Amino acid sequence: MTDTHIRATYEIRPGRGGDAEARARDIALEQTVELPEKLVPDTARGMTGSIHSLEPVGRDRWHAAIDFPLAVTGTEWPQLMNVLYGNISLKRGFRLVDLAWPQSLLTALGGPGHGIAGLRRLTGVHTRAMLATALKPVGLSATELAERCAAFARGGVDVIKDDHGLADQAPSPFADRLTACQAAVEAANAETGRHCRYFPNVTAARPKLLERAAAARDAGCVGVLVNPWLVGPDAMMSLRDEFGLAVLAHPALTGNGIGGTSGIAADLLLGELFRVAGADAVIYPNQGGRFGFSRAACERINHRLRRPLGGLRAAMPTPGGGLDVARVGAWAQRYGHDTLFLIGGSLYARGDITAAAQQLIRALEHRNGR
Amino acid sequence: MTDTHIRATYEIRPGRGGDAEARARDIALEQTVELPEKLVPDTARGMTGSIHSLEPVGRDRWHAAIDFPLAVTGTEWPQLMNVLYGNISLKRGFRLVDLAWPQSLLTALGGPGHGIAGLRRLTGVHTRAMLATALKPVGLSATELAERCAAFARGGVDVIKDDHGLADQAPSPFADRLTACQAAVEAANAETGRHCRYFPNVTAARPKLLERAAAARDAGCVGVLVNPWLVGPDAMMSLRDEFGLAVLAHPALTGNGIGGTSGIAADLLLGELFRVAGADAVIYPNQGGRFGFSRAACERINHRLRRPLGGLRAAMPTPGGGLDVARVGAWAQRYGHDTLFLIGGSLYARGDITAAAQQLIRALEHRNGR
Repeated sequence: MTDTHIRATYEIRPGRGGDAEARARDIALEQTVELPEKLVPDTARGMTGSIHSLEPVGRDRWHAAIDFPLAVTGTEWPQLMNVLYGNISLKRGFRLVDLAWPQSLLTALGGPGHGIAGLRRLTGVHTRAMLATALKPVGLSATELAERCAAFARGGVDVIKDDHGLADQAPSPFADRLTACQAAVEAANAETGRHCRYFPNVTAARPKLLERAAAARDAGCVGVLVNPWLVGPDAMMSLRDEFGLAVLAHPALTGNGIGGTSGIAADLLLGELFRVAGADAVIYPNQGGRFGFSRAACERINHRLRRPLGGLRAAMPTPGGGLDVARVGAWAQRYGHDTLFLIGGSLYARGDITAAAQQLIRALEHRNGR
Repeated sequence: MTDTHIRATYEIRPGRGGDAEARARDIALEQTVELPEKLVPDTARGMTGSIHSLEPVGRDRWHAAIDFPLAVTGTEWPQLMNVLYGNISLKRGFRLVDLAWPQSLLTALGGPGHGIAGLRRLTGVHTRAMLATALKPVGLSATELAERCAAFARGGVDVIKDDHGLADQAPSPFADRLTACQAAVEAANAETGRHCRYFPNVTAARPKLLERAAAARDAGCVGVLVNPWLVGPDAMMSLRDEFGLAVLAHPALTGNGIGGTSGIAADLLLGELFRVAGADAVIYPNQGGRFGFSRAACERINHRLRRPLGGLRAAMPTPGGGLDVARVGAWAQRYGHDTLFLIGGSLYARGDITAAAQQLIRALEHRNGR
């Protein structure tokens, strides 16, 4: 790989009588100059994608690796995503499955500001897998939510994130919730000597997202939750660069890319693109929960978040979406201790959430002690 | 429809042995409180969705209309989208196909700032369908692109938009392109007496998007191009509210919602959600071009953009994506004169783009004169 191109691999299904090479050439032009080859002026020829390789990988399935010049992607996130999957999203049978990054682009985009090591420093948890929970439901008052925060924090939960549907609704407006929950967590930390962290949800329209991030930082929060697909993944870069906040990314609205023959492969989107754009931890629906991710897809996400990638910090896999309390120990054994387990509903189902959280922490300590 | 709820209709495919009603209840909880019904505290019960109706519409196809309280969506765009299709995107067999809006939500979100009538005032075109073209390709210098602008403007093109892949690349940095192209268009207008408008592409990460919008406005541009799905549709509201710019929305990256059994129906996303979020005109891939939209889908988009909707301004359908010069007259006859035809590649293919544009304008005048 040179440092002048990014290589994107697409799974192509040309269909009966379709021509895989023509489809691959289509990507190379459609995603860049958007003109037929004969209409591209000589001075713009260096801007088109080029086919690096094209290989059959199954029945009506090809892998086409296309090299796109950095001259056309630039180092701006939206244009990068546009080149990788903008117009092609409107055609059938093109699935983005892999990327080979030039170092300069990784360096420019930056990746996590804190990463796994940073999250461990912020929470003081070094020798076991970590535990997160979701504060919910929408409809409770800020006081009621803060009581839940206190109970979770006393039970040893490491990260309490707002449910991703908590925004600025009347029962607990953002500002009230922020103040009450952060105070509750700080008070519990003073009792326990732990460093539980409250991550409020700052997902909102411009300019409110940035206002809420500023409020969170000023209230003493070290991290926030955001839904990148709802507001643009570049929001994560602002949270990192302008506020120094740790970023927990939620997968809301990303689901079209899961499985199927089009879209962006889930492991690439959640495990790699979100990491490169600045997520310190990425929530994904674990196998066996309410959603349909396969075990293999989950393992691929874990791998992509943690693997060496041009000097970027590793990000924390955060499986959730219906994880059962009783099985967390087994999952910790399987996924390893650099994992942040997100347990929401099944923790609430236990009634005494402090005791349930304590039990979970013991399970994680047992599986991961060293 | 009351003014306290938004009604969302999903096409559900429960699959063999699946239970449509259970799937509908799943949406009502998953998209709001994210807890099983028995764990929802009494004070939060008013926040869950409720099933308004559930009807079979075909083999393994049901329409479930769910009423979501505005108390849970609020009037913030990201949280609205989250409730409508956030987590459900991660499950299979739920497709969002229709919405019934409460007036208060439409009023709060605002819709187009200019709309069809405003675009006609800005361009001075009142008695025919309008003509747009895309400035390309990436790789040309600002001077070369400005020459193309001048040629198009002299030919009578009404709106010249940047290709959606023109960002801030080295061959024509945004600032240089803005200055050169706007000057070229103004000079041509002085010759022709027309009001051709240059819409630069401001799609970029925060805060650059807003900086580019400010630069465009200060340079004298009345509108801009943006890719809402790349940066969050709320960007359109900022362009409308903070800058008063007309917004031309591009469908890059939206394509996962087209066809298929999951996703957001294309006509709903491009024809209604984008309009409500502030698009004055929405580009979509016309039938018969390089992409796969059906004629019926195109007609539905046109209808949604123009139909009465709670007092919001109508938005301009902008079919593109491989529209053939030779067939524009026929399309104008079919789609009516409140249409902005986007002709890119096939105009370039004519060589003399000024003459080709003139010929197109004559075709539109002929079909739509009144």
